[in-house]
Amino acid sequence: MRFTSRQHLDSGVLEREFTLGETPGTLWTPGSTAPVPLILMAHNNGLPKAQPRLVARARHCAAYGFAVASIDAAGCGDRPLSAADEQARADLGRAMRAGEPVDELFESLVGPLVEGAAPEWRATLDALLAQPGIGGPVGYSGWAALGIRLAVTEPRIAAAGFFAGGYVPRVQRAEARRVGVPLLFLLQWDDEGNPRRRALDLFDAFGSREKTLHANPGGHTGTPWFEVDDANRFFARHLT
Amino acid sequence: MRFTSRQHLDSGVLEREFTLGETPGTLWTPGSTAPVPLILMAHNNGLPKAQPRLVARARHCAAYGFAVASIDAAGCGDRPLSAADEQARADLGRAMRAGEPVDELFESLVGPLVEGAAPEWRATLDALLAQPGIGGPVGYSGWAALGIRLAVTEPRIAAAGFFAGGYVPRVQRAEARRVGVPLLFLLQWDDEGNPRRRALDLFDAFGSREKTLHANPGGHTGTPWFEVDDANRFFARHLT
Repeated sequence: MRFTSRQHLDSGVLEREFTLGETPGTLWTPGSTAPVPLILMAHNNGLPKAQPRLVARARHCAAYGFAVASIDAAGCGDRPLSAADEQARADLGRAMRAGEPVDELFESLVGPLVEGAAPEWRATLDALLAQPGIGGPVGYSGWAALGIRLAVTEPRIAAAGFFAGGYVPRVQRAEARRVGVPLLFLLQWDDEGNPRRRALDLFDAFGSREKTLHANPGGHTGTPWFEVDDANRFFARHLT
Repeated sequence: MRFTSRQHLDSGVLEREFTLGETPGTLWTPGSTAPVPLILMAHNNGLPKAQPRLVARARHCAAYGFAVASIDAAGCGDRPLSAADEQARADLGRAMRAGEPVDELFESLVGPLVEGAAPEWRATLDALLAQPGIGGPVGYSGWAALGIRLAVTEPRIAAAGFFAGGYVPRVQRAEARRVGVPLLFLLQWDDEGNPRRRALDLFDAFGSREKTLHANPGGHTGTPWFEVDDANRFFARHLT
């Protein structure tokens, strides 16, 4: 793991870019030097780790007292998609805008994206836990499909916050019953890209004994800021 | 308003029984002497204000820094029900246990209960806001049907937390669209007495621009304690 840049924020948070093999990542750590829990923060369907809403959440979460990391896994952010995946992403966007059925397009694009991303996140987790000041336990926050895969394959993940969840590949919908960690499931009641009924069915399917649903009115990007604080308290309850 | 007993709790909270005309009530106030917001805390379908889960919530909420009040309105707690209402309550309990349709029984019992309770809660609100150390603004917490009626008829209520909401009389289901205050709607995902679909439809119906749904697995009485803290923070956001 090689750090390529560092920036000190007014909050005391240290923001560092790193690379791990082919994988570019960002690590946010609080001012304190004592070991802190780690939260892996991923964006739905391969949006870039530099996306401003993710960066704002990550900085806030680190200022609260967690180490936070995000990566651009294969097919995410600036990393190249195959011509076929580029085509599938374009077709998916067009079909969603046109209100056409998207399940097969979604499956063909996001299914492989999750399969490809999970090993890179696990390798990143290994490398991060070897860093000074990152003690674990480990939380996961964000992209539901990737989080389900990590939660059922990665025993070091002790709590998870998932967002949206209206579209999740078949494999992860089936894996949801095997998710057992405490869960905070956040959805937007009027999410234009995530059918409410499907998101509620996914919440119902999770095997976790402790799982909490939070829902607010508005579209996909309309989550109120207080949910970021609620998520910090959720992770504090389970990781500290 | 006549105070009939007082008890100092270890938390610093002062718990006082009072009567206002025919209405018995309890007022919990924090140690501080500075004016604090008031939260009206009511129990579903006329359960007594002395019910231990309500008392525990009220004491915690007062220790957090709010004045909290509950009353036994007409037909609630120890106050007499008409012979017809006694029969309706017995029939409703029997029908629910037998899994029979309960809408008409519920309507005939709870519809009048809400109509009778609302004026007593409003009279109590007038008397409480005249007390030293109770400054307002006012929040409402608990029984959804009564809270809807109060929220649409009582402009002094600035925020509301409703629980359950699977069965709400027709009149209040219609009034839900006129509720405009910030709302925290809490339900139990497996509430044996509150059909999930109906509770979600009620959340959908509220007119409030800010409304948040919280749901947890388990039956009616299984709400995790952290939801009490979430409710305190919700009221702090809107009442202070």
